[in-house]
Formats: sequence, structure tokens, C-alpha cells
Amino acid sequence: MSEVYAVRRGRLRERCAATGSTGALVSRPANVRYLAGGAPPGAVLLLGPAEDVLLCPVAPTGDSAEGRPDEQLRLAVLPSASGDPAVAATELARAAGVTSLAIEEHHLAVARHRAIRSVAPRLRLADLSLAVEQQRVVKDEEEIACLRIAAEITDQALGELLESILVGRTERHLALELERRLIDHGAEGPAFPTSVATGPNSGRPGHRPTDRRVEEGDFLCVQVGADYRGYRCEIGRTFVIGTSPADWQIELYDLVFAAQRGAREALVPGAAYRDIDFAARQILTAAGHGEGLAAHTGHGVGLEIEEDPQLAPAAMGKLDACVPVTVEPGVHLPGRGGVRIDDTLVVRQEADGGPELLTITTKELLAL
Amino acid sequence: MSEVYAVRRGRLRERCAATGSTGALVSRPANVRYLAGGAPPGAVLLLGPAEDVLLCPVAPTGDSAEGRPDEQLRLAVLPSASGDPAVAATELARAAGVTSLAIEEHHLAVARHRAIRSVAPRLRLADLSLAVEQQRVVKDEEEIACLRIAAEITDQALGELLESILVGRTERHLALELERRLIDHGAEGPAFPTSVATGPNSGRPGHRPTDRRVEEGDFLCVQVGADYRGYRCEIGRTFVIGTSPADWQIELYDLVFAAQRGAREALVPGAAYRDIDFAARQILTAAGHGEGLAAHTGHGVGLEIEEDPQLAPAAMGKLDACVPVTVEPGVHLPGRGGVRIDDTLVVRQEADGGPELLTITTKELLAL
Repeated sequence: MSEVYAVRRGRLRERCAATGSTGALVSRPANVRYLAGGAPPGAVLLLGPAEDVLLCPVAPTGDSAEGRPDEQLRLAVLPSASGDPAVAATELARAAGVTSLAIEEHHLAVARHRAIRSVAPRLRLADLSLAVEQQRVVKDEEEIACLRIAAEITDQALGELLESILVGRTERHLALELERRLIDHGAEGPAFPTSVATGPNSGRPGHRPTDRRVEEGDFLCVQVGADYRGYRCEIGRTFVIGTSPADWQIELYDLVFAAQRGAREALVPGAAYRDIDFAARQILTAAGHGEGLAAHTGHGVGLEIEEDPQLAPAAMGKLDACVPVTVEPGVHLPGRGGVRIDDTLVVRQEADGGPELLTITTKELLAL
Repeated sequence: MSEVYAVRRGRLRERCAATGSTGALVSRPANVRYLAGGAPPGAVLLLGPAEDVLLCPVAPTGDSAEGRPDEQLRLAVLPSASGDPAVAATELARAAGVTSLAIEEHHLAVARHRAIRSVAPRLRLADLSLAVEQQRVVKDEEEIACLRIAAEITDQALGELLESILVGRTERHLALELERRLIDHGAEGPAFPTSVATGPNSGRPGHRPTDRRVEEGDFLCVQVGADYRGYRCEIGRTFVIGTSPADWQIELYDLVFAAQRGAREALVPGAAYRDIDFAARQILTAAGHGEGLAAHTGHGVGLEIEEDPQLAPAAMGKLDACVPVTVEPGVHLPGRGGVRIDDTLVVRQEADGGPELLTITTKELLAL
């Protein structure tokens, strides 16, 4: 596994060299973890001309939630109260002969930038920009394997919840129980705050659980995902509570299902991000639900729950193979509720069988 | 309650005016919430010469976890995909005649700073620095009331856990159960990731729960806290599992207890931060545990779980009345385990009865 991180750092180093930088300072935690295998709190990674160093304000605990730093990497644990590891890294870079250091200007605060500048006034500071984020978009098979396990855990947790009695329980309790089950099945924790929305709350994107109790006749929307070794997936499903869904519920469900299927089927390498969004959005808009739709239909997932690409109307770019994304359209009717259906899939060549669905819980409208 | 936020903004405005700035752009979420009552995701607050505006990339949900924006405040919900609200706020400031805008250089990333600069090249950008954080150190009685409720909820959750059977249960499960109980008692959620550490893990600061099961003879350390209306407290206690603690356990417990009491008793207005730390540290160091101690003995709490002041050897400054802090020394003996005792207290004048203990769960060494 250690090789993987060295290869990733090698690719980034080449990219920096091509723009004239002989060193790079990576500070954004998910980027540090991607390149170093682990990101202890506050750690920064220096890619230097001779060696790479992970500078940590506290010693790594080996805790699975922060990952395990690559053993090939030099580890420097800074004495406590010695200040910003980004400053220590800059001094190290200067001592190693770096003349141009690429930093993450989208992450590093102005005050930290100034502190770096003050210890190395003659060092050229370049912008690494989103180089690491871009490198992270296409996943390797180890990463996809982690996402696959995260999705399995999530499907299991959701499946078990559906077998229990739901009426009378609050959104908060159902969310907590799902999170407990994720951990039971081996997750580090939830990939994001679990959303459980019932009745009039259903269909709201990112709804935070309240004390409302599940009632007969409700729509119940669940959005949940596991974090497995840092990799985060998500699934969203909508159910009806009681034996027979009302006509408006069936109609709305079928509509969102059609939109979600449209976007899933558009997931082919080379497709424009915005065309995926359009595939779902046009169906919902044509049915009169254009207003109030979420700003995007889906997004990349990986070490963060929202990564590039964004599947949104104004997004620029095209899908590659081996990019995991969510497809999660939904409609919320104020006062009545709504439907969201959300899968995590990996974009694959048609010859490889087309998009790989990671979250396999049924999308039939179940009455629970 | 609305008055409170207007008063806070008024104080900040005066401070900015004193340094020549006619506007301030607040971007750090806890600072936005402190001044605006609520901080929808991504929102920034503009203090302008004529009016204050909360700029939100998405409409506030009124969700208690993000707080409710002050109704006296103008609310601007930006159209989706219109970019960074900090840039929109800067344009608004310029249009309102602001000539010098104070920004949070310790929070705003270099790239955002550049985007602000590019829409207002002639605007003077000053550094707001930690002005809001400093204003937040001394709490008003509404804030202390929230912390008091947070502590009550935490004490209740912990008390209930102690009545249940612990042997054989995993650290992860105990942590999840505590978090469920916090929510049952009215918390928005945990104030920080709950730490449960057993046996050889006990005494480790910030230990993340594992699948280790509680055994007879273990030390069990719990560190937990509730978030109530955004205000976060913490409590830490150490117990022994089984009927009679071993001699080394009693000895270590008494030592940490003495250190914690020493620091608690040093909590008087006017005391230097580092003297509070020293009061605990010297007792542990004299007993031969100087190495491996945490970098600080305690810290402020409020809208964030770690705020100023830091009670640490190199900290500069003196305590004021109405500052809530934690006092949380501990010792970890590698391979054997250890003890942590952690309270949240509010600094009060001696005439007002001295430090107010918010977390009242007993600190006797209980055998469970």
C-alpha cells in the first residue's frame, strides 16, 4: 500500500516541476491524507527535492479515523507550542534548497501565508491551486474497494433499520440508530450527519433530524453513508409508512425515480457534468418542479463527502472512468413532503458494464 | 434576545472604527453565529456603516444546530452558483461607501482574499485579527445559562450510563450510547467526539473509542459534553470497574485529583493563565509524570469546544470573571492506563462565591 502514496506524491512532484516549483506544501487535511496515507490533526506535508516530510504538531496515534502515515515518509513531530507546522515546513524547504514552493492558496489563510513569507522572504511562493483535488477525482482500485465496502456497510445498516418498527420513533432516534449500525458493521463513523426526514420534512435536502415522530401515511426519507478507511459514500431512499401509498405519493415517487434513472443512465465516460445534471433536472422541471430544486444533482465522493466533480447546470468538464459520484435528485412539496433517491456509482466504460452501482438497496417504493 | 446581537455588533463596530475601518467582513462560522445569532453554512456577515447584512449561499433553515439569524439583521440569500459570499459582501461594502474593510486574515484563505481584492482593488483591506474571538472570551449571562444547561444535560447522560451494566461493552458502544442520551435530554448533539477509553487506553487525551470491551479491574475514562444552542461544555471522569481498585489505581487517581483541585482553586479573576496550568502541572511533575503531559491543562469553551484562553505553560494573559474554562489534567501510564478528570467551570469573583462548577457529577473514585 505504501507504494501507492509514493506514486501519488511522484505525480504531484512532476506537476509542480512542470510549473517551476521544486517543493510543495500541502495543508488541506484530505489532501495530506491522500498523499501521506494519514493526516494527524494539524499535520502538513512537505514535498521536497530530496525527501518528503510529514510535519505533525502532535504524534500520530495510528487511529484509523485519521489513517496511518506511509512508513516511507519521514515523520517530524514538532515540540508542543512550536507554532504552525506550515512555517516549520517552509524553513525545512528553504534549508533543502527549494527556491519555489507551491502552497494551497485555497486552503491556507492569509495570516499563515504571511507567517510563511516572514520566515522565507526570498522564497518564491507559487499556487498549488487545486492540483491535489484534481488528482483525487479519478480513483484507483484500492480507493474504489474502500468505497465499495463503505456502501456495503451502509446497505446493511439501512436494511436492518427497515426491518424494525418505525412508527412512533423520532427522526433523531432513527438517525442515531443508523449511525450505531454503521459502526457495528465496521465503519469508522458516519460519512456525514445522517438525515432522517418524515412527513412534511421529507424531501428536504440535508434535513437535520428533529423530534418529529414517524406517522402512518408519512413519506420517510433517509440519507446515510459510512466512512470506511476515510472513504465516504452515501445512499438516500424514500419509503412510505403504512400499507398503501396515496396516489400523489406514487406519482411523485415515480417522477423522482425517472429523473434519478435518467441521470444514472447518462453516467458514461466523456459525458459533460452538466448533461448528467440536465438529464435529471429536465424531467423534474417538465413536471412543474423546476423551482426549489437543489443546486446540483450529484457530486464526487472519496476522502470527502463532497468532492469534484459537481453535477450541476454551470459545471464545466467531462466525466472520466473510475470517478465515483452520487446521483441524488429530489422534490420537496412545502407542507406535504417529498422524495429523494440517492445512489453512489462509479463511472465505468460501457465495455466494462457501464456505471457500477455501489449502493444496492432496492429503489422500489416500499411501504413499511 | 435580538438586542444582544446588536450590542455585540455595536462593540465590534466601535473597535473597527478605532482602527480606521468603516466596515468588517466576518467569515469564521462561530464568529458569524456570535454576532448574527445564526450561521447558515457558508454565510458571512458584513458590518457596514449604515446596516449589517448576513449573506447566505443557501437560505437559513431555522435549524437549531445552526442557530436563528437575528431578525434585526438584513438577510441576503445569494442566487445559487453566484460564487463566494465574501466577494458579494465586499461589493456591497464598496457600494455602501466603505473605504477600509477589516477581514479575518486568520480565517480567510489566500485565494478568497485575492478574489475580494480583485472586485475592489482600491478598497483598503485591514486585518480584523482575533477581535471577535477576544470579544467572545468573557461570556454574558445568556451564554452562561446555555453552558449551564449543556452541563446539566451532560451530567444526566453520564449519570444514566453509570447505572447500566458496563462490563463486556465496547468503547464505541458506550460512546454512542452517551451521545444518544445527550440528544434524549435536549442537546443539539455532542459538543465534540465522545471519548471512552478503557484499560490500557484510559488516560490518553482525546482517545477515540475502539472495539475494546470493558473488563473487570479496568480504569474507564469518559470525556463527553453536550452542545446546547451552540454552547459546548465538557466533563471527564475516571472510574474503576469491579469492586476494589488496586493500590496503584487509588494512588494515581488521588494524584490527578489533587492536580485538578489545585488548578480549580487557582481559578480567580486576575490569575495568569499559565499559573492555572502550573498549579496542576507541578503536582504531576513532582510525582514523576512530567513527561507525556498534555500541552495544556484546560481551555475556554463556548460556541467552540476549544476557545481562548489556553491554560498552558507559555500562555500570556490573565483570567477575567465570567470566563468559562475546562480544567482537565490527566496522566497516562503506557501499557497500564491512567486517569483524567475534567470539569467545566465559570471564573467568578470570590465575593460571588468563587469558581462556579457547571459539571457536578461526583469526582469520588467510583467502583462500578
